[in-house]
Amino acid sequence: MARTRMKAPQRREQLIEVATRLFARSGYNATTTAAIAKAARVTEPVLYRHFKSKQAMFVAIVRRLTRQMLEYWEKRIGDEQDPARCLQLLGLSFPDQLKKLEQANHVLNGALATSRDRTVQAVMREYFRTLVGYLSQIIKSGQDAGTFRSDLNPVALAWQFAYLGLGYEMITLNIGETEAAGVEESVDFLLRGLKP
Amino acid sequence: MARTRMKAPQRREQLIEVATRLFARSGYNATTTAAIAKAARVTEPVLYRHFKSKQAMFVAIVRRLTRQMLEYWEKRIGDEQDPARCLQLLGLSFPDQLKKLEQANHVLNGALATSRDRTVQAVMREYFRTLVGYLSQIIKSGQDAGTFRSDLNPVALAWQFAYLGLGYEMITLNIGETEAAGVEESVDFLLRGLKP
Repeated sequence: MARTRMKAPQRREQLIEVATRLFARSGYNATTTAAIAKAARVTEPVLYRHFKSKQAMFVAIVRRLTRQMLEYWEKRIGDEQDPARCLQLLGLSFPDQLKKLEQANHVLNGALATSRDRTVQAVMREYFRTLVGYLSQIIKSGQDAGTFRSDLNPVALAWQFAYLGLGYEMITLNIGETEAAGVEESVDFLLRGLKP
Repeated sequence: MARTRMKAPQRREQLIEVATRLFARSGYNATTTAAIAKAARVTEPVLYRHFKSKQAMFVAIVRRLTRQMLEYWEKRIGDEQDPARCLQLLGLSFPDQLKKLEQANHVLNGALATSRDRTVQAVMREYFRTLVGYLSQIIKSGQDAGTFRSDLNPVALAWQFAYLGLGYEMITLNIGETEAAGVEESVDFLLRGLKP
């Protein structure tokens, strides 16, 4: 069967998608570059032209997820200026965001819980720091405006939100245990905690 | 070398400890009962006299962890009656608790993020429901006493605390990223959110 050869950026994107699917299904540790190449219908040398190792594929997945998470947040916030309303928008849409980016999040959580690879750990650290940085800016702007209490460290608070989101992900993606009212109550509860 | 044969409960306990260590090191999926038997210096038939499968060992680890978590909490709370102070005691001691029960928690988190085994998932559901049940009782008693706001569902709130603890575990146990001031600020923040 004759197939049009993909251009480099398309091929790279396709390989990231295939790797995400395979890592999500079998785990990062158990998936080989040979399996990824086979599922993407390319030879391993072709794969290695785009990614020098399995770690490099993981790094690409996490960097793409970082961009996707931030793009989703920016889209949700839109023109909204009120920091409390911004956090509310992000909180309430989190289940939808998670569903849209489920596979990559599942890959990241699996690697976070099990991988001892330094490169893999470093890019996950970068991922969380970026998201926490974004959230802490919103908290900081609310503190500056007097909307939020200003006696707490905005970065430490943003980490609480990251922990909460990550724990929620781990439970809902893997054992599907969640309270129907959970998200709205959670957002309400967190905003109450931020009040001066 | 002559060795005294262990009695059944001791042997069972030893096997759980060895399995916890191996699952923590190599992951639940990658560890075989043969490897556990070898590390415990028993034959596989001896292992199977105590546990009918690898799942059964995992179930025993998680049930033991459930007991250990609750015992730790009960010890921390002691005679304390004030619900806000109880939650504060649990929150502030969480990093210490995590350190003491690190291996079993690491095993549970790894399985949570990667295992699709129904038995494994069911016992993890039981684990989280038990801990959430315990926390929700404290919240409920604070609501009844007027210490905490009573317009939020105590079980949904207890799940928020479970998510937060789990996310904190995932980050600190695996990529060691944490803010020095995180725990105290977090506890303060959560208690503020509970105020009427």
